[in-house]
Amino acid sequence: MRFFSDNAAPVHPAVMDAIAAANTLDTAYDGDAWSKQLDARFSDLFETDVRVLWVPTGTAANCLALTALCPPHGGIICHREAHIQVDEAGAPEFYTHGAKLLLADGDGAKLTPDTIRAVTDAIRADVHQVQPHAISITNATEYGLVYSPEQVGAIGDIARERGLGLHMDGARFANAVAHLGCSPADVTWRAGVDALSFGFVKNGGMSAEALVFFRTELSPPILYRRKRAGLLFSKGRYLAAQLLAMLDDDVWLANGRASNAGARALAQAAGDRLVHPVEANEVFLRITADEAARLRAAGFDFYDWGVGEARLVISWNQTADDIAPLARAIAAL
Amino acid sequence: MRFFSDNAAPVHPAVMDAIAAANTLDTAYDGDAWSKQLDARFSDLFETDVRVLWVPTGTAANCLALTALCPPHGGIICHREAHIQVDEAGAPEFYTHGAKLLLADGDGAKLTPDTIRAVTDAIRADVHQVQPHAISITNATEYGLVYSPEQVGAIGDIARERGLGLHMDGARFANAVAHLGCSPADVTWRAGVDALSFGFVKNGGMSAEALVFFRTELSPPILYRRKRAGLLFSKGRYLAAQLLAMLDDDVWLANGRASNAGARALAQAAGDRLVHPVEANEVFLRITADEAARLRAAGFDFYDWGVGEARLVISWNQTADDIAPLARAIAAL
Amino acid sequence: MRFFSDNAAPVHPAVMDAIAAANTLDTAYDGDAWSKQLDARFSDLFETDVRVLWVPTGTAANCLALTALCPPHGGIICHREAHIQVDEAGAPEFYTHGAKLLLADGDGAKLTPDTIRAVTDAIRADVHQVQPHAISITNATEYGLVYSPEQVGAIGDIARERGLGLHMDGARFANAVAHLGCSPADVTWRAGVDALSFGFVKNGGMSAEALVFFRTELSPPILYRRKRAGLLFSKGRYLAAQLLAMLDDDVWLANGRASNAGARALAQAAGDRLVHPVEANEVFLRITADEAARLRAAGFDFYDWGVGEARLVISWNQTADDIAPLARAIAAL
Amino acid sequence: MRFFSDNAAPVHPAVMDAIAAANTLDTAYDGDAWSKQLDARFSDLFETDVRVLWVPTGTAANCLALTALCPPHGGIICHREAHIQVDEAGAPEFYTHGAKLLLADGDGAKLTPDTIRAVTDAIRADVHQVQPHAISITNATEYGLVYSPEQVGAIGDIARERGLGLHMDGARFANAVAHLGCSPADVTWRAGVDALSFGFVKNGGMSAEALVFFRTELSPPILYRRKRAGLLFSKGRYLAAQLLAMLDDDVWLANGRASNAGARALAQAAGDRLVHPVEANEVFLRITADEAARLRAAGFDFYDWGVGEARLVISWNQTADDIAPLARAIAAL
Repeated sequence: MRFFSDNAAPVHPAVMDAIAAANTLDTAYDGDAWSKQLDARFSDLFETDVRVLWVPTGTAANCLALTALCPPHGGIICHREAHIQVDEAGAPEFYTHGAKLLLADGDGAKLTPDTIRAVTDAIRADVHQVQPHAISITNATEYGLVYSPEQVGAIGDIARERGLGLHMDGARFANAVAHLGCSPADVTWRAGVDALSFGFVKNGGMSAEALVFFRTELSPPILYRRKRAGLLFSKGRYLAAQLLAMLDDDVWLANGRASNAGARALAQAAGDRLVHPVEANEVFLRITADEAARLRAAGFDFYDWGVGEARLVISWNQTADDIAPLARAIAAL
Repeated sequence: MRFFSDNAAPVHPAVMDAIAAANTLDTAYDGDAWSKQLDARFSDLFETDVRVLWVPTGTAANCLALTALCPPHGGIICHREAHIQVDEAGAPEFYTHGAKLLLADGDGAKLTPDTIRAVTDAIRADVHQVQPHAISITNATEYGLVYSPEQVGAIGDIARERGLGLHMDGARFANAVAHLGCSPADVTWRAGVDALSFGFVKNGGMSAEALVFFRTELSPPILYRRKRAGLLFSKGRYLAAQLLAMLDDDVWLANGRASNAGARALAQAAGDRLVHPVEANEVFLRITADEAARLRAAGFDFYDWGVGEARLVISWNQTADDIAPLARAIAAL
Repeated sequence: MRFFSDNAAPVHPAVMDAIAAANTLDTAYDGDAWSKQLDARFSDLFETDVRVLWVPTGTAANCLALTALCPPHGGIICHREAHIQVDEAGAPEFYTHGAKLLLADGDGAKLTPDTIRAVTDAIRADVHQVQPHAISITNATEYGLVYSPEQVGAIGDIARERGLGLHMDGARFANAVAHLGCSPADVTWRAGVDALSFGFVKNGGMSAEALVFFRTELSPPILYRRKRAGLLFSKGRYLAAQLLAMLDDDVWLANGRASNAGARALAQAAGDRLVHPVEANEVFLRITADEAARLRAAGFDFYDWGVGEARLVISWNQTADDIAPLARAIAAL
Repeated sequence: MRFFSDNAAPVHPAVMDAIAAANTLDTAYDGDAWSKQLDARFSDLFETDVRVLWVPTGTAANCLALTALCPPHGGIICHREAHIQVDEAGAPEFYTHGAKLLLADGDGAKLTPDTIRAVTDAIRADVHQVQPHAISITNATEYGLVYSPEQVGAIGDIARERGLGLHMDGARFANAVAHLGCSPADVTWRAGVDALSFGFVKNGGMSAEALVFFRTELSPPILYRRKRAGLLFSKGRYLAAQLLAMLDDDVWLANGRASNAGARALAQAAGDRLVHPVEANEVFLRITADEAARLRAAGFDFYDWGVGEARLVISWNQTADDIAPLARAIAAL
């Protein structure tokens, strides 16, 4: 069984069906019937007027969003273990033309008002130092922690107070919302978020993420930037259709709940081994090399996380029956 | 009937089937079973050892290729009506970090040794002027003309002689090869091409193009650049599967032949109206505004090309029966 | 005698004296007593509130100005023989992060409303094409022609009408003003110019140009960009002192008049040989290779301008006595 | 008395004289008689064949050097308090087109093989992470510590072993060499350094630094990059003349010795207050806000360094008599 990454999972049947249903002639790029529905459908979901661009990857969504919030000579405050810092191969620097990631601390890759202020307070307001223009947070974080609406709101307050944009990397936004049980609006624009990378690929999609602008005036130049980055698919309808299928019947939320539930089951089995509270679909365990080897020998696949830790990720399609053997194996270590 | 763009066409059934067949758990990014076959399969096709990267768009393929051939301070010779110059929103400048497109002339968007030399000869070899580092040609061209192996070879000779890289934008490479009836190798590496953007989306694919490096040493940094551009799909197998399906049974070539045949049928009907010889799947007509309106009223859709011209593009799935009514309508104008 | 370039001339004594007088301890960067006077002194000269940054080269001034007026995904309309296009090694693309120069025509490197509109009208307003964001004109032009206030104003009207910024490359601004006999304000902000590269180096300075922002809100980010480009000298007072010395007693204008006068003298001698009217300090002659060789044999140095033409540039320090022998030699050809 | 920065000091008389002596007509850019001597003169100094480019600022020198050693998608290992990281406004990211600074630790801003390996060992060799391509060290460091030839050599060994370029930011290289008493070669190319930013401005120059390439093949593209950055002065002779004047009679070394001596005198007075050993011309003191206020009241100017510390910098022209009153005041605190 694979607990390596939610990226490895197959695509949800509703998404496959939607792709098949989109297989007719239509206008190229984003002029098709599917793409044209996105603004309205996501505006409904978020209970406010939003602008939405499909893009194929989370990295693309994140970086286009950052481009909207930070000039080339500016800086973006993020956690030092944020995906944009450690796992996107310098894509933020590429897209923003060299903006600097200003690294902040926080348990479980979670920023706090204090860790953000520690960064801003250390920067002299002169031309010799890169000035912050935006903050980027990941919800759920890279360690599976979830920011509550209040926690996002506290960061949103700092952003407003200092004139900074606020971006949320929601590669696992569905897991966050599933955990919180709140409206998607509560943990985004109502809490001060300007732009959201709303992830679908890890959650049952094939190749479509939604870049959501709550400040709608940010969107027009990004349409040019998307094309300029080679991201404007000529047959965009196959991306839009994926997003719409995920919104229909709240598939996105159901999938987020499912993978969260699997992670909770593992967490229960793991007990003291947990490195972080399990709030989304990722479980980080303290584990010896020998124990890891035994799990692998038993057929479970996962990612070593430095020395003495392992990361296990539950996918949208893994059932309680899929999880149970691993839970037992962990409990038995 | 739509003759607007081959981008609007649906996806070939074999590609749809391949996508469905890829819908299982596998390694993320390009570590899956499909992606791993690409080098070998394209090496077979091209009769030489090549490296292949899937990318989602032709713009991405072109720009990554140019990045491999030209430093930020260099220049790329291309036709002044090349797609990279007029229809990619500045993507080449974005990817290459500001390299300059050096614009050359030629009928039907086709470069010749003479028009290339006219550009190079006008550049002083001093630090005040951007020096050429690469040439990019489009085959078939933006006006549906095809470079023969000899014509590419003559440009390849200039490239070698002056130390320039040679890129081919093959958004409609299938149409070119179908027209030429040669081996794909003859019109690419054997003629001096270093990197090819091998287009599949216009030819029946959904969202996968192949960036082919004939100089294999160019490929490793581009793997980083692809990721850095947000183009490394987490579920890359759905792209690789498309490419493999197009290679199987030479679907790519059959589709290229089909759309070429449709264009030839139109060309016959168009007679003196043709602006360019029809060698691929595009037909450019001289047509008055009134005539264009009559065609549209009859249900035919196409692109106005400046004043007094129209562009009609045949898609892989348009049959002789689809073409015939338009051919008749044109003949009857 | 050298008529190769005004870049080769020595530095005016007043500038040398000012540099020597600045040789005391003062605050670093632009916090010194000299730098702090620039805004006020140039505001006086231009009869409006301006912001001024010293920079060491015209290329730097031009490119920082363009950065203020055009985003990375935008385009800048300029003449196809503009210095920024042909002689700055791609610096505009570097500074603007890949903005595209959109090339327009016009006699003597001079744009007109018509040639500008020919560019803008050919651009589709969609995301596939780079949209113009700014216009850049050179006054005096690369061929020594001068835009009048009315001519600049007509371009300023287009800029305002289409929401484009307007930059003036004034590498030889002194020559233009000397020719026009107008207020510097008339040919800049009153005619719609947003930013001016006010050149001093060709006109008797050593290493300081003034980047003048008439739209003062453009200036703050450019202070960061100047530092980020490695252009913020730690001992900036030696640049500021040069600019102040050139403004004192209108040395800049006297020098411009002097070199214009020299060019006029040559022009009179040249008669029918003139390729362009002589309005500044540059003279372009029709001349055979044999004639050019004879002039050189007589000790006159100049630049071949393609085949059959020569460029002669008069420097601020060349007197009537310096010019006379060359004028005689030309007349005698 | 100012102990704020060596950037605030006046220019050495020999440099002023050289500038005055260069005030004649000569070839523009770097074709003049002074610029042409640089390679030979610095090759003599470094006892090997080098290529030298004048540039106006240390930031420009550093960034052009990094551009030669690291592609846009690469990373540069430097200290987290390196000037390139904290005081150059993102210039390295601008020049390198977004390369990432990979931050390492070390006392007094000094890297060690261990702190470098801590960075490299934490980077997975896959396309998701930015790979190191270069190391940059500052000698003397930002805290006035000096790397010995052995210490540089140990870092050079790592660089060679891992295929990384090695850059030395020598903004205070003269102070380092003066402290070491070694040949400039010993602490640079003999120890594995590929490119050196050899600083002169802090040490008595006006506006010229030397970018020295020990790997001469790195230099040609950087000539283009220098122009492309707007750094190619049209009257370059005034920069070259400064460098030559500093090399004549080893003015550079004498000045370095002088400011080092001043710092040592202060260090002796400071005793236990020293935060770092004093090896160059910078002195970091532990000092209360009250004590700092008393020093300032007594007429001494300096930089607060965070809370409870002060930075005092000695300039090349400050004599023992200039230093003595401050030394007494510190001793008396």
